[in-house]
Order: sequence, then structure tokens, then C-alpha cells
Amino acid sequence: MRFSKMHGLGNDFVVIDGVRQTVRLSAAEVRRLADRRFGVGCDQVLLVEASTDPRADFRYRIFNADGGEVQQCGNGARCFARFVREQGLTDKDVIPVETLAGRITLAIQPSGEVQVDMGVPILEPARIPFRAPAQALRYPLPVAGQTYEIGAVSMGNPHAILPVASVAQAPVDTLGPAIERHPDFPERVNVGFMERVGPDHIRLRVWERGAGETLACGTNACAAVVAGRLWNLLDETVRVSLPGGDLRISWRGPGEPVFMTGPAVTVFQGEWLAGEL
Amino acid sequence: MRFSKMHGLGNDFVVIDGVRQTVRLSAAEVRRLADRRFGVGCDQVLLVEASTDPRADFRYRIFNADGGEVQQCGNGARCFARFVREQGLTDKDVIPVETLAGRITLAIQPSGEVQVDMGVPILEPARIPFRAPAQALRYPLPVAGQTYEIGAVSMGNPHAILPVASVAQAPVDTLGPAIERHPDFPERVNVGFMERVGPDHIRLRVWERGAGETLACGTNACAAVVAGRLWNLLDETVRVSLPGGDLRISWRGPGEPVFMTGPAVTVFQGEWLAGEL
Repeated sequence: MRFSKMHGLGNDFVVIDGVRQTVRLSAAEVRRLADRRFGVGCDQVLLVEASTDPRADFRYRIFNADGGEVQQCGNGARCFARFVREQGLTDKDVIPVETLAGRITLAIQPSGEVQVDMGVPILEPARIPFRAPAQALRYPLPVAGQTYEIGAVSMGNPHAILPVASVAQAPVDTLGPAIERHPDFPERVNVGFMERVGPDHIRLRVWERGAGETLACGTNACAAVVAGRLWNLLDETVRVSLPGGDLRISWRGPGEPVFMTGPAVTVFQGEWLAGEL
Repeated sequence: MRFSKMHGLGNDFVVIDGVRQTVRLSAAEVRRLADRRFGVGCDQVLLVEASTDPRADFRYRIFNADGGEVQQCGNGARCFARFVREQGLTDKDVIPVETLAGRITLAIQPSGEVQVDMGVPILEPARIPFRAPAQALRYPLPVAGQTYEIGAVSMGNPHAILPVASVAQAPVDTLGPAIERHPDFPERVNVGFMERVGPDHIRLRVWERGAGETLACGTNACAAVVAGRLWNLLDETVRVSLPGGDLRISWRGPGEPVFMTGPAVTVFQGEWLAGEL
């Protein structure tokens, strides 16, 4: 079996062509591939297949390192788009694709970066889900004797955004897990610590639900720009500097989709040799 | 650049053919290859080259993930032998090879496992180095108010061996670092916790100098069998069960070399695509 090893801002993937190869992955096989010592090693395995939907060119499935299938992943979407072009599976610049989270459209930029339509952000508390008396721009959140003003946004998954004066000094390791498991977020939450550099640039560190601090979380970057735009702090297009690198996020306003543009890198191509997966 | 990803009992290597490819690795390039998210990912990079010594068929160099070159590594030696056979660089079963630690001979077994001559163990305290009034079979070592009876052996690097009733319950995480930095071991020490199952089988957990507990340490496995043989607890050939898998260690007695036999697995072959290394 052939595969590519790719990453988007350090979020890394084993990407497998399931169009020209017959590939069926059990949870145990995903775990074996994702193991960093006995397998290839990655955060997630991305399996590209032919679409069953005539309006999409491909579908792809994303599996976490524990073998479970997950929905959307902005970093994975960019790697997918770059993969199908590099492998000659398509020559299009705009690629409609079927995912577990619905149909999305990916656009390869002249620079080689990939733009992903991340969908319309959800602001209604009940749909995030977040317990609040009414929808608001800011919500007071009491944590360990202090009250923080946060934004709450769903990009298909729940996000809390906390403005900070400096991401370098933000208490990500302590306040992150405390907000992640706050009782007002019944499905837990991804926590973004956002430092505004200017109207077109923020710095962001993210405590991810179930994963701890990561190098880059694309959906939290979208949620942070949505929150910052609602607070009248940001322009329509914003550079988001994450520990793993930069994304460009664009959002016109409520009811409109968020667009994320960023890099995807192929590190190596490989051929699995350790017997049946 | 083409490479293989291999492991010996979970100790993993990027192995590069520097015979048919021109490969020069700076410390920064080794660090880039060894990075598990932005590179290929491994504990060590192993570079195979033509030998300058007419008595050896190859030489290989081993680089740690931090870019520094190191001497001997039993798990790496097994992967080297398997690599040169799989890649068609030799068709011999017995391969003399030049390493930074001197010339060694590797023998590929009919099973595909590889036997490595690990050299003659050093028992003189000053050469381990270990501070003791005289050479002995057991040394009392005071640690945090208790005195432990240990064996002390060098296999080119220093080892302390501590017999325990059960490796599962051994205090590896606390006693390991305390012995590693004991003032009587001026260059620090690798600490093996050895449970005797029978005369031909031990279980071993190893706290490695500078690395913490690892899946498998080949030189500590040799040292443990040497110590157990000197204590009249073990046969000439012993199965050593480490968390990463099993090794077979043979030692006749003082003045004789130790032979280590174990597996080496090729997980995948790859081609680096992320630009100049």
C-alpha cells in the first residue's frame, strides 16, 4: 500500500489513495498506521475515495489515531486538496468534496495554498452547545473564583474564545482544561487564547478538547476571527499566527461562511512493507 | 532521497543508503528528518556508507534525534544488517562492519533475526566508570536512606543491574533517576530492573541515561545477563523480555564476548519530498 505523509501547520496525516488502491481500514489498522514507532505515525489517517454523490468529485474520511472516525478537520481538508492534485487524481483548482460533515468546496490558490469553505458559524448557544440565558456577544464565565468574558461559537464543534494581552503569557495549561470542562459546555469545548496584534492580525494558542494544547486548530482560528469581528476588533480578512504557522481567515459577517486559507506540505511518499495491515 | 523506516523492539530508525546515494547530513538535517510531525520521525538516523577499512564491508554512523553522532546501538546494528540485505547491497549472511565504536560482525539468522557481537563486558569499576573500593559481584549502593545490592557492568556504556521480585511493580520512575545520577557513577548510568523468571528467562525494564524508561535497551539486556550469570542465576543463553519485545542473549563467561540476537522490522520505504534537507 502506498501513502503520503503530509502536514498542515504541524497537524500531521497519513493520506491514502483509496481510489486507485483497494483500502479498507479497521480501527486496529488505523491505530497501527498512526503509531509513531511501530507504524508511520500521525495525528490522523485520511482516506480518499470516489464520491457516491454526483455533485462531488471525491469523498474523504478522517480517522483519529485511536481509530475513531471524525467529522471535519481544516488542516486535513487542505492536505486532501493538495494530495489529489499531486497524485494526478484531478486537475481542477476548485474541488467539490463529500465529507462526513457534508459537502465542502476546496480551492487551490496559485501559491499552492488551499482555501477551505468552513461553513457558516453557529452563534445560538443551544446549538453550540453552551448554557446561557440568551445569545450575546460576550458571556461572563466564572472559573475558579474569577469571571472571564468569552465568546462562544460553533464551527461544527464548540469553541470558547478568550481575549488575552499576550499569548506568550496566557495560562493555557491551567485555564484551558478548566474552561474545556466547564459545566456550561455540556460537550466540552476548544479554548482559544487570542491576542490582537492589529485589525488584520491575531496570535492564537488553542487548548483542544481531548487533546490539550496543539500546534494549530483551524476551526478555532475561524471561531476566533468570528468572535473578534463580532466585537468590532478585526477586519474581514485576518492573519492568524498559531504555534505551527499562519492561516488566513476571511468572514463577511453573520449568515456568511468562513473561509480559511493555509499551507499543506507533503513530507514524503511511502510504501508500507510490514505485512498485512 | 530514499530511506527505510525500521525498528528493533520499538527503537526506531530512519535508515539511509549512502552507498548508492550521495548523502551528507548536517545536525540540522538530522533533526529535521527525526522530527515526528514535520519530518519522518525516529529515535535515531542510521547512515550506511562504504567502508574505508578493507576488513569491513560497510560502515554506518548513528545520529541521535538532536543531531549528535553516537557510538554503538544494538537495535540499530540489527536494522543495519537487515537493511543491507533487503536493499541488495550484500548477499552475505555474516557482515563485518565498521562503526564509530570499532569493527563488529553481524550474522543474519535463517529466521531473519540478526545476531550482534556486542563485545567483551567490562567489569573493572574504574573502567565502567563506577566508584568502588574493589571489583565485586555485588555492590551495596545507598540511595535515599536504603541500601540496594547492584551489579555494575560496562558494555561500552555503564549499566547498573538491580534484581527485583516483579518488574511490573518495580519503582522504575523513582529509583531509576536516583541511581542514574548517583555520585558513584560519575558519567551517570543506565539502570536495569531484572526479574528472574527461570534460568533461561528474565524480564527487564530499563531506565536509560538521559532518556528515561525506554521500550528496549540492547546493551542493558547484555549487562543484565552478564550480572545474572556472575551471580549463578542464569544459563549461557537467556531470553530477555523487554517492554518492546524479546531478545536472546548469550554469554559464556568472563573474557568472552556477549552475543545478542533479535528482530529488525522494515515498516515502510519512503522518498523525501519536502525540498532540500
